[in-house]
This record gives sequence, structure tokens and C-alpha cells, in this order.
Amino acid sequence: MEWLDYDGDACSAARALQVLGDRWTMLVLREVFNGVRRFDDISGHIGVARDVLTRRLNALVDEGVLVRVPYQAPGSRTRYEYRLTPAGKDLRPVLLALMAWGDRHRADPAGVPVSVVHADCGEPVHLALDCEAGHHLPIDAGLRMVAGPGARRLAATQ
Amino acid sequence: MEWLDYDGDACSAARALQVLGDRWTMLVLREVFNGVRRFDDISGHIGVARDVLTRRLNALVDEGVLVRVPYQAPGSRTRYEYRLTPAGKDLRPVLLALMAWGDRHRADPAGVPVSVVHADCGEPVHLALDCEAGHHLPIDAGLRMVAGPGARRLAATQ
Repeated sequence: MEWLDYDGDACSAARALQVLGDRWTMLVLREVFNGVRRFDDISGHIGVARDVLTRRLNALVDEGVLVRVPYQAPGSRTRYEYRLTPAGKDLRPVLLALMAWGDRHRADPAGVPVSVVHADCGEPVHLALDCEAGHHLPIDAGLRMVAGPGARRLAATQ
Repeated sequence: MEWLDYDGDACSAARALQVLGDRWTMLVLREVFNGVRRFDDISGHIGVARDVLTRRLNALVDEGVLVRVPYQAPGSRTRYEYRLTPAGKDLRPVLLALMAWGDRHRADPAGVPVSVVHADCGEPVHLALDCEAGHHLPIDAGLRMVAGPGARRLAATQ
């Protein structure tokens, strides 16, 4: 496909970025993936202003990525914690890809801060690719873009 | 590891987001990955204000993700186009992960706008995981986080 002939707004990456397109949003999701689900814990750990965090959490709930679940500590009023919906869980590869890039290009001289390991065997994991013909490919394999049924061709501009 | 005991700023995803943490930056990279390298082409296709695009391109050059390459159309002054550095090319999995999520959760009723296919065989590709023990895993395999040498434990707070 000739990329400029198509409407980039129809692109799935663009649509995903409507949900995810800022740094705080991804860091909030990182916390929830790591089991940090309560407002004060998230706010303290990532150092985000409370009003910004409120807006980001509300947006993620509105987008169906997080869900609010009530909890009540003894003697306190009911509060809410945030959990990933199935759509939220499906964002894990985005975080894994960001981490892999940071590990490779921005790690401390001391080494990587966190290793992501296979739960069963404890060995580090790396992103790879599978193709529907059954080829198992390295993450940097040669790829092409092909227009799909949802592509929107732009009117020729002159 | 107990996530809240560690400094989240040392996390590689956080460091990657220092470079990538906004929507326009990722869309600019999407254009360059798709061979759209010139200012006017990028600006027109993603519909970003020129001053915003200038800032994003400069930041990506400063971060070593893009490089400026001069070109000259006949009868015109020298201009610059933007190409991915090796570090820039390593961001492809982030875009692939964003696209996969958008395909699954935000696609048109008509279907996906773009398929990413294996260059050799033309079949669609999907993200997967490999572990260093040689296990080939689906992208939603069970994973754990383990503190690495660059982790920074936070002082106990009261």
C-alpha cells in the first residue's frame, strides 16, 4: 500500500493512542499491571499530581481499560481500587515493548532495573513474531503493510 | 519483587516514555516507519500543527531516534528528511503492539485498516514471546517481574 494515499486516522495505532497517548497514562497502567491499584499508592509511586491522576484514571475507566472496584478498610469509608479489564490486560505487549526499548537504549550502567521472566521457568522473555503461515520470526523480521478492509483511501489532493 | 518498594523512575518503560510519551510523537514515528520522511508530508498526513511537529522532530533527533538527512529537489534549496536511526528502528515493536490493540479493540466494523504481514510469505504476523530457556510462548503467557541489577530500592516510608 502507498501509505500517504490512506487516511492515517483509520490506523489502529492512532486509535490506540487516543486512549494511551501520554506518558502518565502508560505509567498508571504500569502500576496497575504491577498490582498497585489504589489512588494514593499510584500517586505516590509515580509522583503524579492528584488532579492529573484523577483525570487519567477516569479516562481509562471511560475507555473500558480499567474498572473501579469498591473496597473498605476497617473504620474507613468505601473507596475504590482500579483493576484491568480484559481490554486493559491486552495492553501488556505495549508495556513490554516499551520496556524492551528502554532496556536496550536507556538502561542504567548498572544493568536493567527489571527482568520480565516466564512464570513457569523463570527465564527472561523477549518479544517475537508468529505469522499465520506458521513461521516463528524474530521481532526484527522483514514485514510489509497491506491495506485491510477498514482502510480509507484519501481523495487525491492536487 | 514488591513493586512499590522500588523506584519506578528506574523502570525502562518510564525511560522509554520520556522519549515517546505523547500521541504526536508516536504518530510521527508511524509515518517515518511507513516511508513518509518529509516535513510537509508528515504534517499533512497526520494533521499536526507545524510548530508542534517541529518540536517533536527536534526532540526525536536529540534523543537519537531520528536523523536529519539533506535532500534537494531541482531548483529548490536544500531541505531535510527524517530517517530512523538503529534506536528508532528498535521502536517498531511498540507500534506493532499499539496496532494490535487498536485492531482488537477499536477497529472499524468494516475490519482492520492495515494488516502487517511477513515480507517473505505475505501472511499476517502477531506478537509472541520467546524465553531464554527456549520456550516459544503466546503473547499472553504468564510472566513475572524480577528485580534486576539496575533496580533502585526505595527507602522505607512510614
